[in-house]
Amino acid sequence: MWAAVLRKGTIEVTQVPDPVPGPGQVLVKSLNCGICGSDLHTFQSATGAAAMARRTGSPFDFDPERDVIFGHEFCAEILEYGPETEGRFRPGARVTCIPVGFAGGRLHAIGFSNDLPGGFAERMLLTESLLIEVPDSLSNEQAVCAEPMAVGWHAVKEAGLTGDEVPLVLGCGPVGLAVIAGLKIAGMHPIIAADFSPLRRRLAASFGADVVVDPKDSSPFERWYEMAAPNGKVLPASGYEAFYATYASRRPCVVFECVGAPGVIQQILEGVPPNSKLIVVGVCLTVDNIEPVFAVNKMITMKFVLGYNTDEFRESLQNIASGKINVKPMITGKVGLSGVLQAFQDLQNPMQHAKIIVEPKRQSWYERTRSRFAGMAAESS
Amino acid sequence: MWAAVLRKGTIEVTQVPDPVPGPGQVLVKSLNCGICGSDLHTFQSATGAAAMARRTGSPFDFDPERDVIFGHEFCAEILEYGPETEGRFRPGARVTCIPVGFAGGRLHAIGFSNDLPGGFAERMLLTESLLIEVPDSLSNEQAVCAEPMAVGWHAVKEAGLTGDEVPLVLGCGPVGLAVIAGLKIAGMHPIIAADFSPLRRRLAASFGADVVVDPKDSSPFERWYEMAAPNGKVLPASGYEAFYATYASRRPCVVFECVGAPGVIQQILEGVPPNSKLIVVGVCLTVDNIEPVFAVNKMITMKFVLGYNTDEFRESLQNIASGKINVKPMITGKVGLSGVLQAFQDLQNPMQHAKIIVEPKRQSWYERTRSRFAGMAAESS
Repeated sequence: MWAAVLRKGTIEVTQVPDPVPGPGQVLVKSLNCGICGSDLHTFQSATGAAAMARRTGSPFDFDPERDVIFGHEFCAEILEYGPETEGRFRPGARVTCIPVGFAGGRLHAIGFSNDLPGGFAERMLLTESLLIEVPDSLSNEQAVCAEPMAVGWHAVKEAGLTGDEVPLVLGCGPVGLAVIAGLKIAGMHPIIAADFSPLRRRLAASFGADVVVDPKDSSPFERWYEMAAPNGKVLPASGYEAFYATYASRRPCVVFECVGAPGVIQQILEGVPPNSKLIVVGVCLTVDNIEPVFAVNKMITMKFVLGYNTDEFRESLQNIASGKINVKPMITGKVGLSGVLQAFQDLQNPMQHAKIIVEPKRQSWYERTRSRFAGMAAESS
Repeated sequence: MWAAVLRKGTIEVTQVPDPVPGPGQVLVKSLNCGICGSDLHTFQSATGAAAMARRTGSPFDFDPERDVIFGHEFCAEILEYGPETEGRFRPGARVTCIPVGFAGGRLHAIGFSNDLPGGFAERMLLTESLLIEVPDSLSNEQAVCAEPMAVGWHAVKEAGLTGDEVPLVLGCGPVGLAVIAGLKIAGMHPIIAADFSPLRRRLAASFGADVVVDPKDSSPFERWYEMAAPNGKVLPASGYEAFYATYASRRPCVVFECVGAPGVIQQILEGVPPNSKLIVVGVCLTVDNIEPVFAVNKMITMKFVLGYNTDEFRESLQNIASGKINVKPMITGKVGLSGVLQAFQDLQNPMQHAKIIVEPKRQSWYERTRSRFAGMAAESS
């Protein structure tokens, strides 16, 4: 099959052996598959990402010297059942699932595995017991977004909100947008969101942010203080007064860190009032500097969250199907396999893009043709 | 009155004006007062500590150019009531309280204030409504320990324990010992504690640690894995197996960071299994490096805690009075006012000391005598 393969630090569109379903597995056709920020990070340094996975004991564990096929936000079509399966869905049915699977007796993260191909390929192997059918009302693109939306939904659930908090979402890429969507579904208001990109601020508003802030123009934290003060009264942001006024009258603060860049956690520690909760959804892959005394003096709780469970994934798919989340504005591009490398580069620019979706069949004709031509060229030389 | 005064970067034993009780205040005699780690930190850099208090919006806010009298772990004797008081306790009664007070219309942290003297002086001004009577069964030294014990009791309460966790306490200075005592009262077992100092390991055992570890000899985390594995089976500390085994069978991990030095948080992030909770009680005053991806991949919750409330303070005094906590082994020294400076230096050595208590009256005779001699010398010159 054709696949966009991470190989020796670049992405090659090439042919790889067709996957064969093992026990409990289903062979599926990858219809659509989203590009995620973690794909970009891993592409930038596969060796670093693999080493970090080992160091942290994470299941995102692969050998960077061997091929990896990215793609863990997928909508797929049932092709063929392997042994020890039940045939839960008819061939042709559209399915999705949380991107994990067993192969060779151990768990793999699909899209970050040497053994299970991700969705940037024509075929994949999924685990039958994990499959969820995609409702007919959803397009392939919408179904793909169940995964990133589940990340935000999980973060909102993990925040343990009482309903009284005023949430601040920093960073409005797909993860930030998913958090905003989750907060809206949870009935939280006002939702304050900040991003330097005008595109992403527009998306934040369309996903449910009540107040959007350009941090270049004004401090997201000052805006938070304005919105969280009772009766519109602006309370002081520092000193004893703030320290004690928090207990007395201001609504509680919960910040969702959806940037994942060094320095952001410290900015939050400096900006928030005492007793704030910080939900870290963004993944900073470098060493970061913090001043713990800020967190101590402000009695901060920092919760680092990752992924989602199967229920949250299923709920996200339902939230899209029921119209609670309109993911369409987030999809800013669509490419075939041969466009993956360029899309990875384009996604570095948050001013232009949020989510680019890969449609493996798109370039199949082109790829086959190119291959045939290449074959002819080889024969004629 | 005589006082040990923080002045121009050193501690001078000198006379300062006698405090006069204002509305709601009680003039008390400082009987005993403990030296705390935060006194040592503030002594090392009063300017830095004051600047940090301002930056973090903390009430530990004072002008480092003006005199400060340290001492916030006190047992005092009622001398005289100010206006607008009720005379709740007879003169001569022994009292203690959480170390805050109002003066000049604003809240001060007693012991870190330019306006309210701490307990390293002959007299103090306390707020009548906050006072708690010290039970007759307690010595002055024991009563003093209600404050540091409340810090640990608060940390244990804030941890939101279910009872199934296996706690690991890193650092067995007074704060770590207080956490161990709190965990024991909460019925947690086994309690694992680690410190490089043999003295402090002995104290940890006497305060209730079931397992004490010298980190020089073996990893506290490996010890934790051994103790938390069900049926004594040693589970792997890393890789997928650990990642998923945590959910399945190992008891949950809660770590109490009671060291407050840079690098410790990262060591914990590297050492703990997924889903661990980290309660940060130690106060690292410098910039610290962490790798947030560890916290993300392990889905860590970090709760930074500070101080205690009045109920927790009262409960700590009761825990000492009822014999639930035996604080006596922790008290490794006692000095008068003129011994404060040397005690600050001695406390830098965790091999020799845990808690040194200041008894202001101890040196009164010596100080008065020295002053009279100095006066005579001045007259005769």
